[in-house]
Amino acid sequence: MKRLILLTMILLLLVSALAGCSKGKETPTAVVAEGGLPADAMAIAQERGLTPADINAALKTFVPSGKWDDYYMFTSGGHSGNLIVIGIPSMRILKNIAVFTPEAWQGYGIGDLGSEAVLDGGNVDDVKIRMGDSHHPALSETAGDYDGQWVFINDKASARVAVIDLRDFRTKQIVKDPNIISNHGSTFVTPNTEYVIQGTQYAVPMGWEYAPIENYKEEYRAVITLWKFDRDKGRIIPEESFSIEVPPYWQDLCDAGKLVSEGWGFCNSFNTELFTGGNMQGNPQFESGVSQRDMDYLHIFNWKKAAEVIAAGKYEEINGMRVIRIPTAVEEGILYLAPEPKSPHGVDVTPDGKYIVVAGKLDPHVTVYAMNKIEQAIADKKWAPDEFGVPVLDFDSVMLAQVELGLGPLHTQFDGQGNAYTSLFLDSALAKWKLGGDDPAAYALLEKTPVQYNVGHIAAAEGDTVSPDGKYLVALNKWALDRFLPVGPLLPQNLQLMDITGSPQVIYDMAMGVGEPHYAQIVKADKLSPINVYPEIGWDPIEWKVSEFATKAGEERIERDGNQVTIFSTSIRSHLTPDRIELKQGDHVTWHITNIETAHDAVHGFQLGGQNVSLSIEPSATVSFEFDANNSGTYAYYCTEFCSALHLEMMGYMLVAP
Amino acid sequence: MKRLILLTMILLLLVSALAGCSKGKETPTAVVAEGGLPADAMAIAQERGLTPADINAALKTFVPSGKWDDYYMFTSGGHSGNLIVIGIPSMRILKNIAVFTPEAWQGYGIGDLGSEAVLDGGNVDDVKIRMGDSHHPALSETAGDYDGQWVFINDKASARVAVIDLRDFRTKQIVKDPNIISNHGSTFVTPNTEYVIQGTQYAVPMGWEYAPIENYKEEYRAVITLWKFDRDKGRIIPEESFSIEVPPYWQDLCDAGKLVSEGWGFCNSFNTELFTGGNMQGNPQFESGVSQRDMDYLHIFNWKKAAEVIAAGKYEEINGMRVIRIPTAVEEGILYLAPEPKSPHGVDVTPDGKYIVVAGKLDPHVTVYAMNKIEQAIADKKWAPDEFGVPVLDFDSVMLAQVELGLGPLHTQFDGQGNAYTSLFLDSALAKWKLGGDDPAAYALLEKTPVQYNVGHIAAAEGDTVSPDGKYLVALNKWALDRFLPVGPLLPQNLQLMDITGSPQVIYDMAMGVGEPHYAQIVKADKLSPINVYPEIGWDPIEWKVSEFATKAGEERIERDGNQVTIFSTSIRSHLTPDRIELKQGDHVTWHITNIETAHDAVHGFQLGGQNVSLSIEPSATVSFEFDANNSGTYAYYCTEFCSALHLEMMGYMLVAP
Repeated sequence: MKRLILLTMILLLLVSALAGCSKGKETPTAVVAEGGLPADAMAIAQERGLTPADINAALKTFVPSGKWDDYYMFTSGGHSGNLIVIGIPSMRILKNIAVFTPEAWQGYGIGDLGSEAVLDGGNVDDVKIRMGDSHHPALSETAGDYDGQWVFINDKASARVAVIDLRDFRTKQIVKDPNIISNHGSTFVTPNTEYVIQGTQYAVPMGWEYAPIENYKEEYRAVITLWKFDRDKGRIIPEESFSIEVPPYWQDLCDAGKLVSEGWGFCNSFNTELFTGGNMQGNPQFESGVSQRDMDYLHIFNWKKAAEVIAAGKYEEINGMRVIRIPTAVEEGILYLAPEPKSPHGVDVTPDGKYIVVAGKLDPHVTVYAMNKIEQAIADKKWAPDEFGVPVLDFDSVMLAQVELGLGPLHTQFDGQGNAYTSLFLDSALAKWKLGGDDPAAYALLEKTPVQYNVGHIAAAEGDTVSPDGKYLVALNKWALDRFLPVGPLLPQNLQLMDITGSPQVIYDMAMGVGEPHYAQIVKADKLSPINVYPEIGWDPIEWKVSEFATKAGEERIERDGNQVTIFSTSIRSHLTPDRIELKQGDHVTWHITNIETAHDAVHGFQLGGQNVSLSIEPSATVSFEFDANNSGTYAYYCTEFCSALHLEMMGYMLVAP
Repeated sequence: MKRLILLTMILLLLVSALAGCSKGKETPTAVVAEGGLPADAMAIAQERGLTPADINAALKTFVPSGKWDDYYMFTSGGHSGNLIVIGIPSMRILKNIAVFTPEAWQGYGIGDLGSEAVLDGGNVDDVKIRMGDSHHPALSETAGDYDGQWVFINDKASARVAVIDLRDFRTKQIVKDPNIISNHGSTFVTPNTEYVIQGTQYAVPMGWEYAPIENYKEEYRAVITLWKFDRDKGRIIPEESFSIEVPPYWQDLCDAGKLVSEGWGFCNSFNTELFTGGNMQGNPQFESGVSQRDMDYLHIFNWKKAAEVIAAGKYEEINGMRVIRIPTAVEEGILYLAPEPKSPHGVDVTPDGKYIVVAGKLDPHVTVYAMNKIEQAIADKKWAPDEFGVPVLDFDSVMLAQVELGLGPLHTQFDGQGNAYTSLFLDSALAKWKLGGDDPAAYALLEKTPVQYNVGHIAAAEGDTVSPDGKYLVALNKWALDRFLPVGPLLPQNLQLMDITGSPQVIYDMAMGVGEPHYAQIVKADKLSPINVYPEIGWDPIEWKVSEFATKAGEERIERDGNQVTIFSTSIRSHLTPDRIELKQGDHVTWHITNIETAHDAVHGFQLGGQNVSLSIEPSATVSFEFDANNSGTYAYYCTEFCSALHLEMMGYMLVAP
């Protein structure tokens, strides 16, 4: 009897190993019938103290087992340095994608040579940077609409940009701007993802060289960098990228023009005061010093014309980057400024590309600029130069309308129904307001909805594309305070899902306790086509081809050349081959593991006691790491993904002889 | 007008800075009335295709904005090396607690000297281990019930145990077992948290010294370690801890006795075959080699008696740990074995402490042992020695009942109503079965509920204490397959919340995309009393007292002694003091930052371009880091937590002169 049962189990294990155990999506058997909700629903609602609004919200956000969300949200993790994927409307965290910071579960940057090389692309001087402050994700676009292929994100702390592949949701590249040390107004893509736009935040001398702070105006500068993206290669090409030098204002957020404004880009700024701090030298605090002027500057730049100027060779190469200097940019009509009130935060282009909305931060208005007015003012030369010789367009000539919304307006999104939504940080509210087209009098505040608390960015469904979906908007609130069970002095943020089909309503509070999101983008789920398994056994997920170290079953081996040891191994449910490794103290070991499975979800992990290595070896992938066997001893290595009933048996001994 | 608005805003900022902006919890204004759900609820349900069961599930799991979950779940993150806090029934991730792996958002192990020191406690030889494979969390207990004060968790990869403080949800200590390299059967606490139990997984020579694999039986060993926990100090005290040497079987899971079995502990095992692999030497695969015998061994040990034996000096000190060797353990009646079928996985003591349930893994039964039968068999000396001289109790004398549940039984939990629940990995199901007390015939399978897919551990509300709550059970499923939107080859796990008040029903699918949970524990929320703000300004969160480097407002300073520079700085909305740092290339810098805020949620973060430092400076905390200013240049540092409307202004320049 026992033998029979064992035989059955082994058979089942085999079937599972060969086929995975996908059961397909189930169809609900009985949708609620006309005329009534289930009888016990009311009892449940009463017992749990749910209000009618709660019940509606519950039903709007519940995604049953096996059913899929309608949207993906990609949100930055802030100083966690990652990118977080959330389903909407369920607000479930589907995946944490490691970008600038190593992460052990997905085997990113903890030994794995592929991701270590990606991270090394973002090193600063001789420092291997292994953290970051991810801010603004940008999905790749085709004709101004998300195409679901790539997502980009910046690291504000060290001025870097990452490329994430939406086939496998992995970071494939990090590039470092060679001239600045912090960015913020990034990433934003041009309408066909020709370029990824990056603005500076805190100005430094080019290449963050040393220069006394007293020389701020003369030596400190900012750049707007246009990172060239090659869709076929799936990489930013630094040699085909360029920067436009701009004054040492602190550029904040940016956006790309679209449709009628395609070819243009916009970055706002603050600290046009050129204040440099010194609070221990008797100067005002930074927050006062950079907030003295009533007007700062919106940067208006023409990236298409800039690309032509670059092609014509009118640039300087600075630290390996082609830079259009300020005088050239002015002379070639690439760069203009427009006054904007006061230390603004977000700049957002309307879906039709006609209007540019700037949120005031220290001014209660949003200010709407019209692209046709900007072009007319340029044609009419209605400008006066700033102190760096950049033309400042006449405010009244380019400004179309101002709408008073409330305190601390930060960011604006759109619903495709002619409405705009702006977050109000100090009011802790979402303002809904009407876009008035070319008629200034038609712009009007419609209503304000409280959020909890201190809302920063907001993201609406496809809300910054040429065709917003409306329906959902997420308020990325910075403070949670009393919203969730207490978890000590460091609280989660509160991401509130809002239904914006009618009057905006909060329908779900999501605790964000794995990072501090800044911006997010929300894309219709059917635009993405991620793979389940890598295309061929032995796949290198970074190089996107079969690895030269791919190992087939039966070809596992250990090669030794002096003290250089190379291990070619495989993993399959439920063993690693080889399962015995004999080394000598002082060996340098390079270890390649190929997951020879092709079943969906048949991931194997790998850790090795006493060494910093954590791998995720996904179906058909080949992953490599290396280490020095400096200490003699007996070590265990094993699969860290609970892959099968015999997962704990999936181990090996590594012996290092003295 | 503009001046007035600005004045108002500055006033608001000040008020916010002084008081935070807590608005208190809101009371719902209208609970759903007798007689009817809201009229639009049915329309929503129909539009979204919800079944009656979906509607009930939605209402059971929805936690409205500002209302709190009823339970905390603490779940391991597996090879992410962290501990994840989830609210039940909402299944929201409230917080990721970094334990074995650095994490940038919470400023853990990325420069912060306090957490770096915690991590260094777990170094292996000269390797600074910065990853881990966290498996089994154990909440501290008083009289066998969770007391909400501490939580412990192990790292299987390098045999370490961590202590997490539930006042501030931070890791305070990591200890490394000096004799073994992998643990699995940990952590489990004794009923008053006198000790944290840790079992070995893969046997190695003591101290993981080198010994040929051929000497496995002679030289390889396992230990069961009893880590002494000092509640006042909040620390494990290695000098007061001890180990019991056991044979080189692969110990799997453990549990502590309670009530009538208090003083005893239980660890099951597999690989009693002493198989050592060699799949490239023509030997069978590990999963076959370690699964040959029909019976393996349950380890039964008396930790109270062991503590007396230690006190009597009957131990050997091995690598600094006091170890009771096998012959002493046998002679003193500390260690027994009992046969258990076949490569079992979980061992779980019933709430009354009378019965020990072992799940078969490769046997379709759970096997129930009775403590009184074990004690009787010991008294009657009904045993024969194993090949290491350890008494193996007669199976029929100690076994009370076996219940056939299905394929791949792994883990068992209890509901306090006389029922047990066991996960069936191969069946992808939860088995509910009846505990029969002392009557073997009364034990019976009640029903099986499908889960999606490959369930590993399960956790019921307080389900492993002396007083389980019933109501909720979470199935920690290893494979998600088709359950969620696709996210590439690495999928989330699927944590399914089940309502077990009646026939078990899945009521929520939670994607777990930030780690791979093994075990979890679920504790009633009101048992925890986390703090919101550290007790005094300048608090050291690790040492739990005012830091010697605490800095008050007005006492900020930069001290230089040769090339040793020490910075004493403060943070408050919205500036860092000092905001200018002047260094010379080659300086070694130690930098202390005190968050002088006392408002709830007024956290400041800190990153510095070009250096690996990411800090979370929580209200009233002092945090320190150090670095070498090897490169000259101009760098920006800034607050990474969006703390106020003037957060972007909260920065400083660090100049390193060549």
